[in-house]
Amino acid sequence: MKIAVDAMGGDFAPKAIVEGVIMAVSDLPADAKIVLIGRENAIRDILQEHKFTGSSIEIVHAEDVIEMSEHPTKALSQKPNSSIGVGFKLLKEKAVDIFCSAGNTGAMHVGALFSIRAIEGILRPAIAGFVPQVNGQYAVMIDIGANADCKPDVLGQFGEIGSLFAQHTFQIERPRVALMNIGEEETKGSLIAQAAHQLLKDNKRINFIGNIEGKDLFINKADVIVTDGFTGNILFKLGESLYEVTKSRGVEDEFIARTNYEGVGGSPIVGVNGNVMIAHGMSSPLAIKNMISWAVKQVEANAYVHIAQALA
Amino acid sequence: MKIAVDAMGGDFAPKAIVEGVIMAVSDLPADAKIVLIGRENAIRDILQEHKFTGSSIEIVHAEDVIEMSEHPTKALSQKPNSSIGVGFKLLKEKAVDIFCSAGNTGAMHVGALFSIRAIEGILRPAIAGFVPQVNGQYAVMIDIGANADCKPDVLGQFGEIGSLFAQHTFQIERPRVALMNIGEEETKGSLIAQAAHQLLKDNKRINFIGNIEGKDLFINKADVIVTDGFTGNILFKLGESLYEVTKSRGVEDEFIARTNYEGVGGSPIVGVNGNVMIAHGMSSPLAIKNMISWAVKQVEANAYVHIAQALA
Repeated sequence: MKIAVDAMGGDFAPKAIVEGVIMAVSDLPADAKIVLIGRENAIRDILQEHKFTGSSIEIVHAEDVIEMSEHPTKALSQKPNSSIGVGFKLLKEKAVDIFCSAGNTGAMHVGALFSIRAIEGILRPAIAGFVPQVNGQYAVMIDIGANADCKPDVLGQFGEIGSLFAQHTFQIERPRVALMNIGEEETKGSLIAQAAHQLLKDNKRINFIGNIEGKDLFINKADVIVTDGFTGNILFKLGESLYEVTKSRGVEDEFIARTNYEGVGGSPIVGVNGNVMIAHGMSSPLAIKNMISWAVKQVEANAYVHIAQALA
Repeated sequence: MKIAVDAMGGDFAPKAIVEGVIMAVSDLPADAKIVLIGRENAIRDILQEHKFTGSSIEIVHAEDVIEMSEHPTKALSQKPNSSIGVGFKLLKEKAVDIFCSAGNTGAMHVGALFSIRAIEGILRPAIAGFVPQVNGQYAVMIDIGANADCKPDVLGQFGEIGSLFAQHTFQIERPRVALMNIGEEETKGSLIAQAAHQLLKDNKRINFIGNIEGKDLFINKADVIVTDGFTGNILFKLGESLYEVTKSRGVEDEFIARTNYEGVGGSPIVGVNGNVMIAHGMSSPLAIKNMISWAVKQVEANAYVHIAQALA
């Protein structure tokens, strides 16, 4: 298993990224290696600084860097030798099993669409967020920001690909799929949510349990939470903020600690022909370490293969 | 000052309502009275049970009750002698200064529109939610559920009426108005959010500070948070759930305690010709007590008069 990590992406790259990778190495499965992509000298300097000499980290040199502020499509076409450009090239050639980056989210999304491409039949690939639940598990919220405007059929398909993703990644037989809405009744919500409810209800391939509300986000009502990328992004960022908001107040609680973004460290793009994971721009070494352990799960599950089979 | 309270509305009415009113009485301003509307015998029984004999509670008999599950418009026209019907009649006649109910939210909204009516020039009256901030204050989030689908001009107007409401209710000179969105840049978000951003930015009568994100909900970035009733309702209910989610885990924190719905107890309808407050269906006596103290603030501020003047 080869896990490619963009060494140059993120507010604290390459230092935080390389340090996170070093932390991750001891927990990796025996057959796993990490492929660090970026400026070789910079990466080697950090590895040396930490006296790292193991063989489980490979380096693939990439001269350019796509900055956080750059326009995704333009940057990707102008910088094929950027760490993100090289990462997707390796992923497309199946030289690596997953590509992870804390860099420019837009470039990651566009890069996935241009290289490994959307799975045939997928209306809109989406970013899935892992939402901690009070019972210790995670729910998959889809979409958390790739598609701010979603038509009902897109939301309906999120239910299906979210269900397949949860089934294979978390080994849940029949994931409970719910629509985030403003009331339990099917006549509640925006016109789009009402129409999406009907499509989800009519889809016999999923276990649709109906609407859930904001108050249900953390309490294990559903395994898959369907929502548009606007609502999902706002909810997800609010959820992640709970740790920050309460940390300075001295609150210590295991559940709230799990809302810290560092616990998961990354969010997969679902609906494309490969494994891609996007991390926070501000990722710390701990976040990168944890993202890598989730990346291992993703590769073991290869949910994208099952999604492609289901849509074929 | 006369504060009308629907004695029959809510899951635990009339008992919880009347008990909350009894709790509220000792904190009322000297000139304030509470007008309990509902079945006189039932109300008297509860007052007697608590040996209440003061003169600060009046009773106005209303024979009928609109149930939580009833269709708002139909119920209102078929039951003019319901507690909600009578409450709006008194409010329209200015026999009372505010009408509060934990009953059928839809009937409260429709009742306000049919009796005291929307202020001239208001596109869509909205429900405003008080969102606790870590600094001890409250932000006004508008809308939290009256309008699931909002066009950009409606959101733009929420900014203006929310600003006037916050200015007069909280005595803030130039309330900071923000748009809830998925990024700080004005090009971020749904098409509707992008268009609303421009309208808010161009409105020189408000102090628009730009977009905020989900992570900013509680951290005192804005005094007024503009959002559609779909997103706002989901966010507000998530916020209110934090207390419930952490209570059973033994978390004790002053900020989280303030996310408990009982602390405010009610949400005003903004944009109509009078003061109306909607409480949770599950309202406890404590929630009703606190709603009444917020109702006093509302009457003292009479924000609706200032909104009507500004739009005239």
